[in-house]
Amino acid sequence: MTKNKIGREIPDYIEGIGKLVPYGGPFDFKPTKKKFARKISSIKPGESKLLESIKEAVIKTGLKDGMTISFHHHFRAGDYILNMVLDVIAEMGIKNLTLAPSSLSSVHEPVIEHIKNGVVTKIITSGVRGPLAEAISNGILDTPIIIRSHGGRARAIGAGDLKIDVAFLGAPSCDDYGNANGYTGKSFCGSLGYAKIDAEYADKVVLITDNLVPYPNVPASIEQNNVDYVVKVDAIGDPKGIASGATRYTKNPRELLIAQYAAEAIEASGYFVPGFSIQSGSGGASLAVARFLREKMIEKDIKASFALGGITGQFVEMQKEGLISKICDVQSFDLIAAKSIGENPDHYEISSSLYANPHNNGCISNKLDIVILSALEVDTDFNVNVITGSDGVIRGASGGHCDTAAGAKLSMIVCPLIRGRIPTVVKKVNTVITPGETVDVVVTDRGIAVNPLRKDLLEKFKKAKLPVCTIEELREKAEEITGKPKAIEYGDKIVGVVEYRDGTIIDVIKQVK
Amino acid sequence: MTKNKIGREIPDYIEGIGKLVPYGGPFDFKPTKKKFARKISSIKPGESKLLESIKEAVIKTGLKDGMTISFHHHFRAGDYILNMVLDVIAEMGIKNLTLAPSSLSSVHEPVIEHIKNGVVTKIITSGVRGPLAEAISNGILDTPIIIRSHGGRARAIGAGDLKIDVAFLGAPSCDDYGNANGYTGKSFCGSLGYAKIDAEYADKVVLITDNLVPYPNVPASIEQNNVDYVVKVDAIGDPKGIASGATRYTKNPRELLIAQYAAEAIEASGYFVPGFSIQSGSGGASLAVARFLREKMIEKDIKASFALGGITGQFVEMQKEGLISKICDVQSFDLIAAKSIGENPDHYEISSSLYANPHNNGCISNKLDIVILSALEVDTDFNVNVITGSDGVIRGASGGHCDTAAGAKLSMIVCPLIRGRIPTVVKKVNTVITPGETVDVVVTDRGIAVNPLRKDLLEKFKKAKLPVCTIEELREKAEEITGKPKAIEYGDKIVGVVEYRDGTIIDVIKQVK
Repeated sequence: MTKNKIGREIPDYIEGIGKLVPYGGPFDFKPTKKKFARKISSIKPGESKLLESIKEAVIKTGLKDGMTISFHHHFRAGDYILNMVLDVIAEMGIKNLTLAPSSLSSVHEPVIEHIKNGVVTKIITSGVRGPLAEAISNGILDTPIIIRSHGGRARAIGAGDLKIDVAFLGAPSCDDYGNANGYTGKSFCGSLGYAKIDAEYADKVVLITDNLVPYPNVPASIEQNNVDYVVKVDAIGDPKGIASGATRYTKNPRELLIAQYAAEAIEASGYFVPGFSIQSGSGGASLAVARFLREKMIEKDIKASFALGGITGQFVEMQKEGLISKICDVQSFDLIAAKSIGENPDHYEISSSLYANPHNNGCISNKLDIVILSALEVDTDFNVNVITGSDGVIRGASGGHCDTAAGAKLSMIVCPLIRGRIPTVVKKVNTVITPGETVDVVVTDRGIAVNPLRKDLLEKFKKAKLPVCTIEELREKAEEITGKPKAIEYGDKIVGVVEYRDGTIIDVIKQVK
Repeated sequence: MTKNKIGREIPDYIEGIGKLVPYGGPFDFKPTKKKFARKISSIKPGESKLLESIKEAVIKTGLKDGMTISFHHHFRAGDYILNMVLDVIAEMGIKNLTLAPSSLSSVHEPVIEHIKNGVVTKIITSGVRGPLAEAISNGILDTPIIIRSHGGRARAIGAGDLKIDVAFLGAPSCDDYGNANGYTGKSFCGSLGYAKIDAEYADKVVLITDNLVPYPNVPASIEQNNVDYVVKVDAIGDPKGIASGATRYTKNPRELLIAQYAAEAIEASGYFVPGFSIQSGSGGASLAVARFLREKMIEKDIKASFALGGITGQFVEMQKEGLISKICDVQSFDLIAAKSIGENPDHYEISSSLYANPHNNGCISNKLDIVILSALEVDTDFNVNVITGSDGVIRGASGGHCDTAAGAKLSMIVCPLIRGRIPTVVKKVNTVITPGETVDVVVTDRGIAVNPLRKDLLEKFKKAKLPVCTIEELREKAEEITGKPKAIEYGDKIVGVVEYRDGTIIDVIKQVK
C-alpha cells in the first residue's frame, strides 16, 4: 500500500492487473514509451471484407480465450451490439475475456450472465450503471474493474496499456470496405469519437452495420484502411435509446439558481472574453448555464471560438446563431447534435484522443477556457466523485471529467448543496475521479466556494459581489440540513481501480457490504 | 547481383542503403513487421507551439547531422518551403542529411549547392526534374537516390523503412496549435494528402504557414495532436506555380485520336458499367479520354461511384453534374480542384496511405476499376518507364503509376507511338517503374496492344472492332518510322534505385555518360 498525493491508499500490485503507480499530480507523470503499433496487414484488390454473420467475424478475427474485446458507447441506452456480440461469443464457448468498451450502461445487464458463465472475467470501462454496476460493487468479479476517463482510455490504447485484440464497432452507415460514419442511417448516433481510437489501434476491427451503403462512403469517420471485416445485421440499436430529441430546459428553481450563480461567476472570472471556449454537460443546471451565458454573449457581443465535448443541440443552435465559431464533438448528446455533425462543416467530429488524451501532442482540452462539470460529491479538498453513489455502489462514469478539469483554465463544478437528505459537499468523497487541485470553483444553490489555489478568482468573485464562502462553510451548511452522513460500510475486497488520465491510480472502489 | 522477376539486375547490397530485396511480383511480398511507432509526447495546457522562425524550429526539434528531413510537394513548381528550410539548415552548419520529400521538381535546383556543401548526402523521393535531376543522373551523389511511388512512400513510412526525424510541412492555413488545411489562404494547394503521413509518423513535425488563423482551424487536414511546432513566414509558395487555372482541352489531333481509342476501349472492356470507378491523369490525352467518357456516360446514363487520385477540375465538374458520386483526392491538380475540396463534402481529401499504400488494410486503389496512365516508354513486356528520358537522364516521377496499375481492374497506358524521332514502344525500357504484369492495355495513335495475360480483353476489343495489334507490332511500326533507337551509354555507377510499392527493388538507374 502507498498513499497517493491526495491521501488515498493504493495497493502496489493487484493480481490480474499488475503494478500500480500512485497518482502524483495532474501533470506529474511523464510518458517515456513508444506508441503502441499493431502488425502491418495487407489485403489484395478483389478480396472482400463483407462477412455473413457476427459468428463468421469472430472466427475470422481469431478471437480466443483470454483476449480483450472492445465496443463504443455512442448508442448509449439503445445499444444492441455489445449484448449481441457477447451472446455469439458465449455460444461459441470462448471464455475469460476482458471487456473493454468506452463505457457501459444499464442496457448491458446481460453481461452479468456472461460473467457468471466465465465468458467475461475482466472489465475496463469509463463507467457502468444499473444491475451490472450493482453486481460489480457486490464483488461479482475476481479482478477489479478499471475505470478510465475518455482521455485516459485514448492514452491507454495509444500506449499499449490497453491492448485490444478485437474491436466490434457499430456503424450507423458503412460500405462493404469499412468506410463508416455515425450520422446517417436509422440508427444514427452522431459522432463516432470514441470508436475512432479502437479502429486505429485494435489488432482486428469488425464494423457491424444495419445500413450498408454504396462504396465509397466518404467522408468517413472510420476509414477503410483501419477495418478488417464488415457485417450486416438487422439492427444495431434502438433509435429511441440512442438519441433523445431536443433537450428541454429545466424549470427546477434550484437548478436555475445554481445556473445563474455559475453564469455570473463565469462572467466575473476574466475568461468571459471574445474568443473564449467552453465545455458543458447535458444536465439541467449545465444546460441552463449555457442558456444564461448565451444571453450575456448577445448582450456584450462576445463570441466563443469553440464548444467542446459531448455536444447538445443548444450549442448547435448557438453556433448557427453565430455565437460559437466551431464545435468539436466527441459525442453527440441529442438528436439535433447527431444530425448537425453530418451537415455542418464547422461542427467537427473529433476522436477521444484529440479530445482529451494527455499523452499526445496537445489535446483540445488543453485549449479549453471554461468547463462546467457536475458532481455526485465534492469534498473539502475539492476532490470530486462522479462514480459511486451515497451507498457506495457504482452508478456513474468517469467520462471526460478529470480530463477537462485538468485542461480548462476555469474548471467549475455545479451541484446542489444537498440531494434529498444527502449532502453533496462532504469531508471526504467516497471515490475520487477528479483531484481537487484541478477544480477551481464549486457552485451550489447555497454559495460558491473557490479553491484556495485560485486566490485570483476569489478576488474577482468578491468584487462582483457573488455569494462566495469557503468549501468548509458549504459542508457545514449541508450538514446542518442533513445531519452528519453515516459512513458507508465497505468490505476489504477492491472491486474497482480508478485510473487518473495519465495512467496513475487516483483511488480504488471497495465492495459494498 | 540478382535478376529480379522482370529480368533486371539488382545488387544484393548498396552502401548507404543496405540490403535490397529483388522484385518478385506485384503481390508477392508479405509484410511481417509491426507498424512504426514514434515516441509518446505530451504538452501541458498553456504551452505554446508557435515559434519565431524556421531557425528556432530547427533548434527546438533537435535536428542533427545525419538525420532525415521531409517535405510535401503539394506546392509543386511554386514551393518555397524546401529551399527556405535547407538554406537555414545549411547556415546552421548541419550536414549529412537525408532529404525525403514526397517529390522534387525543377524549382529545387538549389539543392545542388547543398549537395556540394555536404548538407544533403542522400535523397529519397518520388521523382525529380530539371537541373537537380541532371546532376543526380551525372553522379553528384555518392549514394543512389531511392525512387518510391506515392503508395510505396506511405508504406515505407508506416513500416519504419523511411524514418523521418523532422517533417517541415507547408500549410496554407494553420492555427497556433497546428490544425491545418490546404484549401484556404493565398498559397492554397487543395489536398494535403502527401503531408498527412509525414505528420502522423515523423518524430517531430513543424508546420510552416503564411496564413495563421484563429484556433481551432477545423475541419483540419492535419490535426494538432500530430504537430510539434508552428512557424509563421511571409510566403510559403508562389500561387502561380502551385495551381494552374482551369485545364484546357487538347486540340492536338494525335492526342484526340489516342483518347478516342482509349474511350472506346474502356466502353468495350466490360468495366464501363454503373458504379464504375476511375483515375486519370492531367495530361492532354488523359483529359480528353475523360471528356469522351463523359459523353458516353450521359448517352448511356452510366454514373461513376468515384474518381480517384490527382484530381482535375474536369472530374470536379462531372461530380457537380451528378456523373460521379464521390471524389477521393490525394493531390489537387488545378485551381478548380484545389478550391472544391474545401467546399464540397463529396470531394474528400485522402492521405497517400489511404490512396495507395499496399500494406495497410485496403487502399482505395484496390477498389479502382479503370486507371488511365501515361508513359515515357513501354516495352514489349508491357513494362513502363515514367522516370528516365530517352537520354537516360531522370526527368519524371514514379507517382501513383505502379500503385494504381496494380490496383485497377483495367490499367491502361495512353501514349503516342513516337515522340519526335523517338519511339515510345520499345524492346526494353530504360527504367521500369511499373511491371508489365500489372499493365493491361497500351493505347497509341497507331493501334491498341493488349497484354497476353488479358485474353478476355482482347476478345472484347476485337468484337468492338477496335484497332488491336500485338505490342511487338507496335514496336515494329515505331521503328519503321524512327529507325532502331541507339542504345543509351551508361556508366557503371548506380545513381538511383527504383523501389516497387511493396519495398522490393524493381530496377536501378545508372549514371549517364
